[in-house]
Amino acid sequence: MNRTYHSQQTCPIARTLDLIGDRWTLLVLRDLGRGLTRFQDLIDSLRGMSPNLLSERLKSLEACGIVERGFYSDHPPRAEYRLTEKGRDLEPALEALRVWGKRYAQSAAGGSEP
Amino acid sequence: MNRTYHSQQTCPIARTLDLIGDRWTLLVLRDLGRGLTRFQDLIDSLRGMSPNLLSERLKSLEACGIVERGFYSDHPPRAEYRLTEKGRDLEPALEALRVWGKRYAQSAAGGSEP
Repeated sequence: MNRTYHSQQTCPIARTLDLIGDRWTLLVLRDLGRGLTRFQDLIDSLRGMSPNLLSERLKSLEACGIVERGFYSDHPPRAEYRLTEKGRDLEPALEALRVWGKRYAQSAAGGSEP
Repeated sequence: MNRTYHSQQTCPIARTLDLIGDRWTLLVLRDLGRGLTRFQDLIDSLRGMSPNLLSERLKSLEACGIVERGFYSDHPPRAEYRLTEKGRDLEPALEALRVWGKRYAQSAAGGSEP
């Protein structure tokens, strides 16, 4: 069969989505790009994401070189997370999603949230 | 608490991801953007995606105005799917993911797939 136009393996979009292609990961990258660095600030921003899931996603992003972890306090040890260059280079994709969302994905008017 | 920087509701990235933010949906949009229009061609390209899931995603994309469905045959009825303008305007986001993937997400060398 030669009907497969682009295998998941050879397509750079598919390979990118293998690394960052779930909703929560993209929102974590959004918040790191906005300068949040501490676990607690991230979890406060990402309402609905469990701490365990955030921890797992940060480890995964660190493992593939998109996020680097440092420490802002030794006693007790407190981690901070920052985008690497590889991570910062995802900003054009996030910006494109933002532009599209502003144009086409309306926010719910008069929802129950403040 | 005023620590929530951007609620999922007000952030245009989050709203966009509510509509198209799962891996398969983005790959469906990629293939429609490349000119595939028929269900069978899409399912052949999207190896690993079940026909039921593709059908559900196409209906969802049609419901939010990203995809439009027409017919290329009446007897038997055969549907074809095309991006609307709203759908085509997601191309910059897909292109940004493609550029990043080419630079940073290496394809597996010598994998078992052809």
